[in-house]
Amino acid sequence: MNKEILLKKRLILASQSPRRRELIQKLGLPFEAEVSDVDETIPEGMDAVQVPEYLSGLKAKAVYDLHKGEDVLVVGSDTVVILGDVIFGKPKDEEDAFRMLKALSGNWHKVATGVTVLSGVPGSGEIKQSAFTYVSDVKFFELSDEEIREYIASGEPMDKAGSYGIQQGGALIVERINGDFYSVMGLPIASLAQTIKKM
Amino acid sequence: MNKEILLKKRLILASQSPRRRELIQKLGLPFEAEVSDVDETIPEGMDAVQVPEYLSGLKAKAVYDLHKGEDVLVVGSDTVVILGDVIFGKPKDEEDAFRMLKALSGNWHKVATGVTVLSGVPGSGEIKQSAFTYVSDVKFFELSDEEIREYIASGEPMDKAGSYGIQQGGALIVERINGDFYSVMGLPIASLAQTIKKM
Repeated sequence: MNKEILLKKRLILASQSPRRRELIQKLGLPFEAEVSDVDETIPEGMDAVQVPEYLSGLKAKAVYDLHKGEDVLVVGSDTVVILGDVIFGKPKDEEDAFRMLKALSGNWHKVATGVTVLSGVPGSGEIKQSAFTYVSDVKFFELSDEEIREYIASGEPMDKAGSYGIQQGGALIVERINGDFYSVMGLPIASLAQTIKKM
Repeated sequence: MNKEILLKKRLILASQSPRRRELIQKLGLPFEAEVSDVDETIPEGMDAVQVPEYLSGLKAKAVYDLHKGEDVLVVGSDTVVILGDVIFGKPKDEEDAFRMLKALSGNWHKVATGVTVLSGVPGSGEIKQSAFTYVSDVKFFELSDEEIREYIASGEPMDKAGSYGIQQGGALIVERINGDFYSVMGLPIASLAQTIKKM
């Protein structure tokens, strides 16, 4: 799909997430993954749903700054789980994972993934930027405490926003999704392809 | 998740689809795959959305009949793509695939997966049956003729209902799904797990 646009540029994924690395491969293009530290402090008063796009911008910019003036396309992405207006990040420990999964059980929540694409203009300090947020609604089946404990014991929840992974054991927990499966996984790959084509 | 219920029974998937075989593994249980020929003629006047559950019943029954009186749990499944009230099955050839993808481009369509679970009662001719249909709505991005030709050239559409696979190259085509990703792939695995638990 319009691979010509991209093949001239180095594609850099500003993320260490193995799920994002797996998903960006669907573009069928060579890419590198690289990260640079950012201050993830969220500005006072920012809506939960705006947070991932803000963080994706910081992540992309930090990596872009290492490649100024080069012919690169940098993709930053961040995903949050939101129940009501509270962000569920990665769990601190197993009790924290239990608390999150118990709250999500039987309910709808939102998964917002923010994406920022930065395109460098070779030999200049200029930069083209495009960003978007994909919000999906996700419904969990009702889970018993025993089922939650069993899922936590599998180890899967511990490195994931909201304490679940829709592509693994979490597949048995999710009743319905209104949105994009890949965005819930961490990268809305079809929307990203469209954005890159437009740029 | 309540694996005890199942471990005593032999789980048989009445399908040869590699995608369904992959998905049923998410139950974390040993299973066999087996098929038996059925007459897939659809009764006159049946609604398109009822067809997959009807066919899943035929598939499950045909395999169950090979194991009468045994302690088996047989899962049959069938998936159709529906645009308006027309069923899109597997494409006959590349032109047929082009026609389908062109019609789906930029539009919403339905993907209905019917599932029938048959549970044999050992030593008797009795049988417990549970069946359901999961309907998802899927929205395609607008595709150029060139993009459609490119996708067909990948070979992926040729063995799939509606001429696309959401889990492979089709991932770049789908803008939104309201329903269940795994059901669109061919087996609503979470709903199947719930059904088996209730039985």
